[in-house]
Amino acid sequence: MKAESKILARFNAVRKRTLEICSALERDDFMVQSTEDASPPKWHLGHTTWFFETFLLKKYLERYREFDEKFRGIFNSYYNTLGYFMPKPSRMLLSRPSLETILEYRRYVEGRIVDLFQERKNANQDEIENLVLLGINHEEQHQELLVMDIKENMFHSPFRPGFGAWHSRRGKAGKLGWVEFSGGISSIGADRGGFSFDNERPRHKTYLYPYMIATRLVNNGEYLAFIHDGGYENPAFWLSEGWSLISREKWKMPHYWEKHGDNYYVFTPGGMKEINKEDPVCHVSFYEADAYARWAGCRLPTEQEWEHAFSSMNSRPKRMEYTWHPSVQSSNDGLQGPGECWEWTSSPYLPYPGFTPLSGALGEYNGKFMSQQMVLRGDSAATPPGHSRVTYRNFYHPESRWQFAGIRLCRGPEHD
Amino acid sequence: MKAESKILARFNAVRKRTLEICSALERDDFMVQSTEDASPPKWHLGHTTWFFETFLLKKYLERYREFDEKFRGIFNSYYNTLGYFMPKPSRMLLSRPSLETILEYRRYVEGRIVDLFQERKNANQDEIENLVLLGINHEEQHQELLVMDIKENMFHSPFRPGFGAWHSRRGKAGKLGWVEFSGGISSIGADRGGFSFDNERPRHKTYLYPYMIATRLVNNGEYLAFIHDGGYENPAFWLSEGWSLISREKWKMPHYWEKHGDNYYVFTPGGMKEINKEDPVCHVSFYEADAYARWAGCRLPTEQEWEHAFSSMNSRPKRMEYTWHPSVQSSNDGLQGPGECWEWTSSPYLPYPGFTPLSGALGEYNGKFMSQQMVLRGDSAATPPGHSRVTYRNFYHPESRWQFAGIRLCRGPEHD
Amino acid sequence: MKAESKILARFNAVRKRTLEICSALERDDFMVQSTEDASPPKWHLGHTTWFFETFLLKKYLERYREFDEKFRGIFNSYYNTLGYFMPKPSRMLLSRPSLETILEYRRYVEGRIVDLFQERKNANQDEIENLVLLGINHEEQHQELLVMDIKENMFHSPFRPGFGAWHSRRGKAGKLGWVEFSGGISSIGADRGGFSFDNERPRHKTYLYPYMIATRLVNNGEYLAFIHDGGYENPAFWLSEGWSLISREKWKMPHYWEKHGDNYYVFTPGGMKEINKEDPVCHVSFYEADAYARWAGCRLPTEQEWEHAFSSMNSRPKRMEYTWHPSVQSSNDGLQGPGECWEWTSSPYLPYPGFTPLSGALGEYNGKFMSQQMVLRGDSAATPPGHSRVTYRNFYHPESRWQFAGIRLCRGPEHD
Amino acid sequence: MKAESKILARFNAVRKRTLEICSALERDDFMVQSTEDASPPKWHLGHTTWFFETFLLKKYLERYREFDEKFRGIFNSYYNTLGYFMPKPSRMLLSRPSLETILEYRRYVEGRIVDLFQERKNANQDEIENLVLLGINHEEQHQELLVMDIKENMFHSPFRPGFGAWHSRRGKAGKLGWVEFSGGISSIGADRGGFSFDNERPRHKTYLYPYMIATRLVNNGEYLAFIHDGGYENPAFWLSEGWSLISREKWKMPHYWEKHGDNYYVFTPGGMKEINKEDPVCHVSFYEADAYARWAGCRLPTEQEWEHAFSSMNSRPKRMEYTWHPSVQSSNDGLQGPGECWEWTSSPYLPYPGFTPLSGALGEYNGKFMSQQMVLRGDSAATPPGHSRVTYRNFYHPESRWQFAGIRLCRGPEHD
Repeated sequence: MKAESKILARFNAVRKRTLEICSALERDDFMVQSTEDASPPKWHLGHTTWFFETFLLKKYLERYREFDEKFRGIFNSYYNTLGYFMPKPSRMLLSRPSLETILEYRRYVEGRIVDLFQERKNANQDEIENLVLLGINHEEQHQELLVMDIKENMFHSPFRPGFGAWHSRRGKAGKLGWVEFSGGISSIGADRGGFSFDNERPRHKTYLYPYMIATRLVNNGEYLAFIHDGGYENPAFWLSEGWSLISREKWKMPHYWEKHGDNYYVFTPGGMKEINKEDPVCHVSFYEADAYARWAGCRLPTEQEWEHAFSSMNSRPKRMEYTWHPSVQSSNDGLQGPGECWEWTSSPYLPYPGFTPLSGALGEYNGKFMSQQMVLRGDSAATPPGHSRVTYRNFYHPESRWQFAGIRLCRGPEHD
Repeated sequence: MKAESKILARFNAVRKRTLEICSALERDDFMVQSTEDASPPKWHLGHTTWFFETFLLKKYLERYREFDEKFRGIFNSYYNTLGYFMPKPSRMLLSRPSLETILEYRRYVEGRIVDLFQERKNANQDEIENLVLLGINHEEQHQELLVMDIKENMFHSPFRPGFGAWHSRRGKAGKLGWVEFSGGISSIGADRGGFSFDNERPRHKTYLYPYMIATRLVNNGEYLAFIHDGGYENPAFWLSEGWSLISREKWKMPHYWEKHGDNYYVFTPGGMKEINKEDPVCHVSFYEADAYARWAGCRLPTEQEWEHAFSSMNSRPKRMEYTWHPSVQSSNDGLQGPGECWEWTSSPYLPYPGFTPLSGALGEYNGKFMSQQMVLRGDSAATPPGHSRVTYRNFYHPESRWQFAGIRLCRGPEHD
Repeated sequence: MKAESKILARFNAVRKRTLEICSALERDDFMVQSTEDASPPKWHLGHTTWFFETFLLKKYLERYREFDEKFRGIFNSYYNTLGYFMPKPSRMLLSRPSLETILEYRRYVEGRIVDLFQERKNANQDEIENLVLLGINHEEQHQELLVMDIKENMFHSPFRPGFGAWHSRRGKAGKLGWVEFSGGISSIGADRGGFSFDNERPRHKTYLYPYMIATRLVNNGEYLAFIHDGGYENPAFWLSEGWSLISREKWKMPHYWEKHGDNYYVFTPGGMKEINKEDPVCHVSFYEADAYARWAGCRLPTEQEWEHAFSSMNSRPKRMEYTWHPSVQSSNDGLQGPGECWEWTSSPYLPYPGFTPLSGALGEYNGKFMSQQMVLRGDSAATPPGHSRVTYRNFYHPESRWQFAGIRLCRGPEHD
Repeated sequence: MKAESKILARFNAVRKRTLEICSALERDDFMVQSTEDASPPKWHLGHTTWFFETFLLKKYLERYREFDEKFRGIFNSYYNTLGYFMPKPSRMLLSRPSLETILEYRRYVEGRIVDLFQERKNANQDEIENLVLLGINHEEQHQELLVMDIKENMFHSPFRPGFGAWHSRRGKAGKLGWVEFSGGISSIGADRGGFSFDNERPRHKTYLYPYMIATRLVNNGEYLAFIHDGGYENPAFWLSEGWSLISREKWKMPHYWEKHGDNYYVFTPGGMKEINKEDPVCHVSFYEADAYARWAGCRLPTEQEWEHAFSSMNSRPKRMEYTWHPSVQSSNDGLQGPGECWEWTSSPYLPYPGFTPLSGALGEYNGKFMSQQMVLRGDSAATPPGHSRVTYRNFYHPESRWQFAGIRLCRGPEHD
């Protein structure tokens, strides 16, 4: 199979998977936007299509006829360079275009992408393939957002309906162990081989001090110990902005948790369930992750430490006391939760030395968000298979909790 | 036809008309709540049904089986006495129950109301008939709200779709004339014959000074003169809270108006249209109505003056230079606009002397809103035929503009 | 003594009294603005002086030299007609002019007012005397505001210092009795004899139904019974906007009250004191007054009922079971509290039939506030002696509590 | 002179200088808090005294009698470990204690510190000296805050009074040059010799890529070119949160700037002055500094690059085309402005590898603010002489502008 056939096959598979994620939705669920962070599922379907139309079809397909020029503004997420876009909180107003029209839009654009692959015989082949790859990865990111947003929407419904298959971890999480690294100069970031986002590049050197990183994520049982020890009542564990946040919002436990009597429950794809102490704690903010780590006498890893640790693991698997991302192995039968989750690092989201954004409007894809957000590494049960990698940089504001985010502890260097 | 058959026939007609109002909607339009004042059309369909279930079926129909106990809270609008209700701004979250389920709920409750009429042979006949009448009038109020909310939603759509037949007034509005009244003791309010809301009762005496009331509403052309004369820039015309409001919100014209170049346009059921100067100005707030009146050297009528004038007209039509509510005559072919509109009075919404709210939860229907709202009289093109009457009291906050509200001028008594 | 000498003597006395009210203040207290409702005491001293300068000296005193043209904007309270004024919340920024400069400004303007009385021999004598009278009454209003604002400021100080002599009521409040009135056409409002504000005029007829009014204000003991009966937890007693207010603000008792253990304390001019059950309850909002009345099976009087009752009392004192405003008798040794307080009525603040505002900028004195506020009648322990009268209309937003406001009950007409 | 005499002399000098900074204030100016970022000058006088009382006298001086226990809460800035502190926005309410009392408090505590030095003959000598040094440095930080807050307060006064000597830069700023560094492993941070804050420690290695840093700060003329080129209208130059900020706040120029006609003016210690194009641009937010740099085809330096550059300069001054911090030389005649200013870096404020906060309540001094703030390096005309050093880390939120903050450009590494 030629490279372009492979890409087209992957394009078709990803487009299909997006609709599969929505298969648990009733018709009216496509309209819901329960918080300003989230978007209505309908909008995700339109926006991921708009991406291909805007960055590929309009530029490279001869005689391309735009589906509807009104879509320029309503499915543009945040690209100022492309002109007006609707403010995010008003996406809930989009009863028009209808879901049917959006599905038609999807099919129309998919057909034209096929045309593009068949017809082109020009000099742009590499550029087109790269952009299709980018569009595929973009759509995969929105697949995870769809899961996050659907979960949030369903939680806000008075019916709290389930929306997917779900089974909790079986067996014990096992004792939390530590892996040591000796530090020194280390190389971080993606090189030019294979797909990566611009924010992962360039690969560059960084200096690390000796550190130890935990073999697994903090689990619910451990986090409950923090709660029961007054973790949410003692400012000594908290960054100042975190303490203000939990005081203002009256947070006493992770997002999606509720306490009834003495028991804790959590909202899952299968509905409200009693907490399983062996599952990794998920849906915590950066401030909660940071406070937990301080309470535990540890800290969060930097993203450099995290990447160095996981890169080393792959080349030296024998020394590891744990397997790289075990949840991937068990998540092959659909959307599972609570699975493993993204891991908060202590690193603000910043450009790497020598960072160059993509040219044109796509330069807004990542670079302009490099302020006031924190990097998360790894992936989650909601991440499409194969989407993430060891250099992958996810990022959210430190107060955000609707993404699948958990805690991996780190220690060192020891003080002299 | 017996009284009960008549009521049942009216019940069926009103229920059917509610769905007819929604006939211009696409499926996803039922989910939209574009402002906190409005409710999603879906919700109106459920709530008007809940009203019959709650206040009739549960109380009077033997062995009534509740459709779904979750509906108690989600379709309760504001009755604290009945327990929890969802905060109004979160009605947009109600993707569940689905529209299909709500329509099934409607049919189920309609069937049981028929059962109630057929089976009852007890002492509660009058009470039941009165409550069905109340439910019918309640649903008619929501029919007008549906039109208001749909208009608001469509205006917020980037597509600004039309949603009904519409034709502007043909011909000239005619010169604005005045009718004089000599004042004295007058009786106001509804007596016990025929249906009325509790807030219209009891009929009572009030003392009026001589006054003159305008023969027709202020029209767009006249209102434009106010705008062009700097009406929105001169605080001398405005109540203090009105001036703060228009400064903060940067209002320069009525709601649904837009200025492009030198021309003014208005959103109508037929989409955006150029202003017709002969149409009555509509969708103004109380503060704008009051400021216009002050600019014109007049004032707004009190609700007592208004009711006295229109009651007198019916009995002495010869002296009138105008016809009682001409728009009703021309609105027989469906939802029309801009038709005539509700008329702001200078009267805050207060209990009449001797006012007694309905007993039980229904006491919350009107009485608890008698604070910080202003009375409007008359009716509008969106009011169901036959719903309003000369004693009818509509009420909105003085800053509200999404209801169909216009301006009738008043003058007097002359100063000595 | 000639009329003009009398007025000048009263002018001097009132100006002196303003400073006496401030005698309990330390220097830095003059700068405090603890809420947006209040103004710093310094500002009151400047504004009451600006009033005389603006409406008298600049217009009538030949060759008057303005003290400082910057004062035009900073001491203008809300007169749009006079140009820019500082937003009320920023009055706390006025460290300049200094207190010394403001006191110098006071003396300067007082001297020029004396000049105005001595020099004038022209046709404006009546106009000037009327405006001086208005300025005197205006300053008296600010004397009450000074007391209110100082109380609020001291309450917000962590030291909660006292600021005046204070002694609670001695002895029993006595049983609450009722006085009956038979209704009919009654005349309300001020005629042209003696000083009155424009909002009290013109005197006009109104129709009253039979009613009974309470002989004294509701006292703390009675209000505690309301609290203990769950008054603040039961929405059935509350107007909808009142219920939202107390839910949002978590109000559980009147302003200035605190509960420690089982006891209630209140902030007074003498500092925090245990509640005296015999004292009238004070510093309640309209919503609390209204809810208390509903709980008690009564209602608040309209301002017409109130005025009619108190006017009648003066001419028929023998029939009264109580004395007109007994607190005045005991308040002769300085600022006392809790004394009697203003009495909430159920009447929104509206223009009387035929109301004409003063001409020019002074037309903004009262008229533009006739929206969304409620009328209070009577006076309070903080009102300057002789300032109020039976036609006097005080007004505040229904949620306001920092003014001295209490509850007088009313009943009737009986339902048929 | 013994070490302890030296420290005591410095203590006395710093305490005296704090009052000198306030010498331009009128009495009422001490009460003003014009924004929530600022504190009233009175409060600074109290808080810097409370610091010595709390961390030294209470712990080390035998039989120390607390001045006033109410001061514990009102002069505690943010130390949760020490119990309640007043919310920052309510510091403006502190008319009590009076300014006189606060000055007495200062003298009282100063006397007891002298006692402490004279009486101690125990084992805590080093600890005490370190804490006095910390208190001195703390007070110096508040000296700069005093200048910042006074400037902000005076700017908000309608009189816009000057508050200090001021003269603009004479002569030309000179051409902006570049100094190159070759990168590699560099050591950053303070070692244990001499005073440093905990956030400057430990000294540690970091890896740097080759970079060039500008010889001087961006000046007003250069910044005007950015403005005239549409810098504030083009989202391409801005981080997403910066663009939201300037859109929401309608920022079009630096803080303290105003445009009248075609000319730009700036508020200085000498009042409003026309812009001097040769002066460094000051009072810009991080977002403006970052946007300017992007417009100029450059970037901001990281704090590591900045420190490396300035450390290198000191040891290799011959190679430099510019002098280390020239403004220090010309600021010897009092408070000058606009002088040089702090320099925004691209580095979020984070703990260094191995960071250990001070023990006890003082651990809250710096560590808990290591979130959502950006590091600034250098010093400003408002920084006390000798206070800053090459390892010094100042930090503010990226939207803050009331501190004296300007822009130094950086470039590299070049992309391959």
